Amino acid sequence: MTQKKQRTLGALLYPQFELLDLYGPLEMFGCLGDALKIVTVAEQAGPVRSFPGPNTVAEFSFASAPQLDLILVPGGVGTFPQLDNAAILDFLRARTPRAEIAMSVCTGAALYAKAGLLDGRRATTNKQFFTLTCASGPNTQWIPEARWVEDGSLVTSSGVSAGMDMALAMIAKLWGPSVAQQIADVTEYEWQTDPTRDPFTKFLDKGKFLPELGA
Amino acid sequence: MTQKKQRTLGALLYPQFELLDLYGPLEMFGCLGDALKIVTVAEQAGPVRSFPGPNTVAEFSFASAPQLDLILVPGGVGTFPQLDNAAILDFLRARTPRAEIAMSVCTGAALYAKAGLLDGRRATTNKQFFTLTCASGPNTQWIPEARWVEDGSLVTSSGVSAGMDMALAMIAKLWGPSVAQQIADVTEYEWQTDPTRDPFTKFLDKGKFLPELGA
Repeated sequence: MTQKKQRTLGALLYPQFELLDLYGPLEMFGCLGDALKIVTVAEQAGPVRSFPGPNTVAEFSFASAPQLDLILVPGGVGTFPQLDNAAILDFLRARTPRAEIAMSVCTGAALYAKAGLLDGRRATTNKQFFTLTCASGPNTQWIPEARWVEDGSLVTSSGVSAGMDMALAMIAKLWGPSVAQQIADVTEYEWQTDPTRDPFTKFLDKGKFLPELGA
Repeated sequence: MTQKKQRTLGALLYPQFELLDLYGPLEMFGCLGDALKIVTVAEQAGPVRSFPGPNTVAEFSFASAPQLDLILVPGGVGTFPQLDNAAILDFLRARTPRAEIAMSVCTGAALYAKAGLLDGRRATTNKQFFTLTCASGPNTQWIPEARWVEDGSLVTSSGVSAGMDMALAMIAKLWGPSVAQQIADVTEYEWQTDPTRDPFTKFLDKGKFLPELGA
């Protein structure tokens, strides 16, 4: 019996990341068992606060992170301050070319764009803040109607929930469609398999961030 | 201008919890801004390991947790060892009667059931391990076909992804349907609003936990 390859997925954390951007994909990838090791990485190891409060522990700093076969970059309101953080951009510049697949969810695409990694590529991002996010990548062909966009090893998804559909598509690509479908079934998730279907393009640049609560 | 009531949601953590059970609902609730404070609670404060690895920090121990208006109990393979943990069952017995809404996702329902809190009530849970989970509540009317089931203040959802639909339904109940729909739109989530629609009943008791990976 041959030893199966274990891949490593590095999930990037930074303050005020959006919870489902990170944990939707990690749920799907986490169902692969021993085939994939998930590690958390941030500028410094230790707890990192999400947008609504709960802290996730970064196991590795940028300096101590192992080789990453897959990279997952979440978005959120915290993305925008990071666009001026050379440490995170340098980390992505160093690690993305060595990764099999480098993914982003929502506004996370802005970090790859700002790092120059989306130059000359097709990509997508969050719909409510589309133009704002796209400004980080003037040399990128931004697709306004897409659940996710794959261009070589760079795969960018639309807002928040779209990351789950992208993750299952990448599982299908690396481990086979049957494995991805089994994971969707086990997690009782109605997987949207068509990357071009995007019911949320109608909210393009609406700029809504939190709902209006009644008095 | 009157001061709006801020509620507190306590998310219960225990080792090997399922990521999306916790973070799907917390994404939706986390979009409420100042209307809801989210806190994490475990038997002891500190990092708690999820099933696939990443650690979430529990801010409060059972002893130090504040009054909880909403309670969220995730499921996962870690649920079953906790059925013999008196501390977690006592915590749920003490806190559930004082909560406005007490929720579970997936096998998390087994903890409420074992604590006796689902006696004489209707409830649902994960489909793949339905009968196994239901064994914790012999006096509960378990519903095999339901995305979620609401019985008084106890609200139990089906497996993993179903927690997001339940969370939005509870947001609609407490803050209004428009607020819930705005959150679904912002998170680019196709909210399933019908609690009786359950495409996963066909997997009842299949007992699949991890996909079969090819050689």
